[in-house]
Amino acid sequence: MSSMENGAGAAAGAPQGPPHAPERAHPVTLREVAEAAGVSTATVSLVVNKKKDARIAEETRRRVKEAIRTLGYRPNAMAKTLVSGTSKFIGLVADGVATTPFAGQIIHGAQDEAWKHGYALLIANTEGNGELEQDAISMMLEYKVRGILYSTWFHRATDIPAPLREADFVLVNCFSDEPGARAVVPDEVQGGRSATEILLRNGHRRIAFINATIPAPAKDGRLAGYRQALEEAGIPFDPDLVMESYPDQEGGYRATAELLKRDVTAVFCYNDRMAMGLYDGLREHGLAIPEDMAVVGFDNQEVIAAHLRPPLSTVALPHYELGAAGVRMLLGLDAAVDGAAKIQCPAVERNSVQTKARA
Amino acid sequence: MSSMENGAGAAAGAPQGPPHAPERAHPVTLREVAEAAGVSTATVSLVVNKKKDARIAEETRRRVKEAIRTLGYRPNAMAKTLVSGTSKFIGLVADGVATTPFAGQIIHGAQDEAWKHGYALLIANTEGNGELEQDAISMMLEYKVRGILYSTWFHRATDIPAPLREADFVLVNCFSDEPGARAVVPDEVQGGRSATEILLRNGHRRIAFINATIPAPAKDGRLAGYRQALEEAGIPFDPDLVMESYPDQEGGYRATAELLKRDVTAVFCYNDRMAMGLYDGLREHGLAIPEDMAVVGFDNQEVIAAHLRPPLSTVALPHYELGAAGVRMLLGLDAAVDGAAKIQCPAVERNSVQTKARA
Repeated sequence: MSSMENGAGAAAGAPQGPPHAPERAHPVTLREVAEAAGVSTATVSLVVNKKKDARIAEETRRRVKEAIRTLGYRPNAMAKTLVSGTSKFIGLVADGVATTPFAGQIIHGAQDEAWKHGYALLIANTEGNGELEQDAISMMLEYKVRGILYSTWFHRATDIPAPLREADFVLVNCFSDEPGARAVVPDEVQGGRSATEILLRNGHRRIAFINATIPAPAKDGRLAGYRQALEEAGIPFDPDLVMESYPDQEGGYRATAELLKRDVTAVFCYNDRMAMGLYDGLREHGLAIPEDMAVVGFDNQEVIAAHLRPPLSTVALPHYELGAAGVRMLLGLDAAVDGAAKIQCPAVERNSVQTKARA
Repeated sequence: MSSMENGAGAAAGAPQGPPHAPERAHPVTLREVAEAAGVSTATVSLVVNKKKDARIAEETRRRVKEAIRTLGYRPNAMAKTLVSGTSKFIGLVADGVATTPFAGQIIHGAQDEAWKHGYALLIANTEGNGELEQDAISMMLEYKVRGILYSTWFHRATDIPAPLREADFVLVNCFSDEPGARAVVPDEVQGGRSATEILLRNGHRRIAFINATIPAPAKDGRLAGYRQALEEAGIPFDPDLVMESYPDQEGGYRATAELLKRDVTAVFCYNDRMAMGLYDGLREHGLAIPEDMAVVGFDNQEVIAAHLRPPLSTVALPHYELGAAGVRMLLGLDAAVDGAAKIQCPAVERNSVQTKARA
């Protein structure tokens, strides 16, 4: 039996409580606060709901607050919501909390920011199930959320689900071509440029890029960034130095032989998982990182990047900041921009790049 | 401006809506449903709240449902909660959504199970911040949750925070010595036994165990399981084959030299991260896995275990099942047991173990 189902008359701190609820008491009622303070329930209600214009003597207000504190009274948030018409919830719909290590940081950033402004995050994890998604959004609407963040685990274009249109919403890590659809996404072009610049700064001129085989904004954006960085450094783009492979460890490993046919001293991998596989491939060829080949990844994936041998220089996907920026945009604290707002991908330098003496 | 703040009189599908809300209409009201169906608002309310005993003609009920469907009316869940006294929320307090890849699966399991029984999950991520935790639990209590799952990212003993006692609660991946505190935790002893049995089944007799330096139920439990498996196989326990190191990649790498001083053909590592570091260490000594050394890990950590070369045999931490079992225990669907309920850690066999010809 839950505490919510207990009658209001149960004795506080009842020693014969249910076995799973040590020392649990029943919830304190408004009436008990009123009795303890020697006032009417209406007066307690006025104090609880912070009606500043209500004419209550300061001494009475003090007594009520004291009783609330002593008894540990909790006002009913649902009742407040009915009065105000909107709850202190922000909904977050995510499609991959369980299957990727990325959604956690979006949640973390969104929650910290929401909390800062007095909102709690109501999270639904759909794992790509459309029916579950519809149900989750409907539930959020029924709970009168202030708005909904609709997020995807990898950066991509998305359709806007019909029920989402009934709410204030912001797309997070995804975007729509519909005019006016607010969105925050990582700046893939800047990220690709930063990754390449790490290698350029260390004197490398012949730099390969192992891109992904799978079409995605990350694929196009990181390639564009790679080209921009080369151009700014006055290095002509050589299409022969761009390869493609499946974006995981096995894909990186398989790309090793092709990479070694190119006359390069450095490589930018589409993601950290690829770089991890490439490490294994290079080692099997008896090559040392960074002495024989400098390697840069992308993602700054928690359990991988910092723990490879040597630790991997990379560019971080700004998932925490995407969540936080989504909340700020939803609440109107950050201005919406035309198209999607782009969040910086910061460079994270470790030991997989060594300064190359310039020729 | 959120949809909740719109007046009820706005035209549906207003083309001059705010730029961030394409095609968004105002929420449909009970009154509009009543008008469309040609009935009173009281009648609509009776149909919406599923008062079976209310005397409403079948034809009227049909008309109301049709109007609800056509207009897309959503009842106010907050109002229903006020009537019933408890909401359709289950709270989940987690201390490490962002910093570990594990919490995601606890969330996934808890949500799937909650959803099955008509509950939505209200998640708060505290990252170990005590003040945030207090606030999160208070908020959940104000929203009259059915109960709270209190979870930790690694299996450990925990204190029960005072506000948690006001709710029905279950500890997930943690436990308390307080009599009656319900809890679900992984079965570390069985997990350690299963890991060792993978190696025994493949003919290994001299098996090392690299345990963690950090005290934890996992450390004691996995060692006990290792000893049980050896005993059942008639192999005397040799304390010299148990080493300790820090439970990450660097710790596994550092343990390589000590391991190679022992006359063993196989090693059980405390976790997959250690095994990943050990792989690097063994390779530097020119040793092949599994030919020169069979390796088993623990955790089945998503981005590591399946993607090492060779893929790592391991034992899975049952995070999804911990979340699901926590919900079932909270709702009284699984009986509470004395102490914590233990969830099986299933063996996951890959290619890091090779059958050893028996001597």
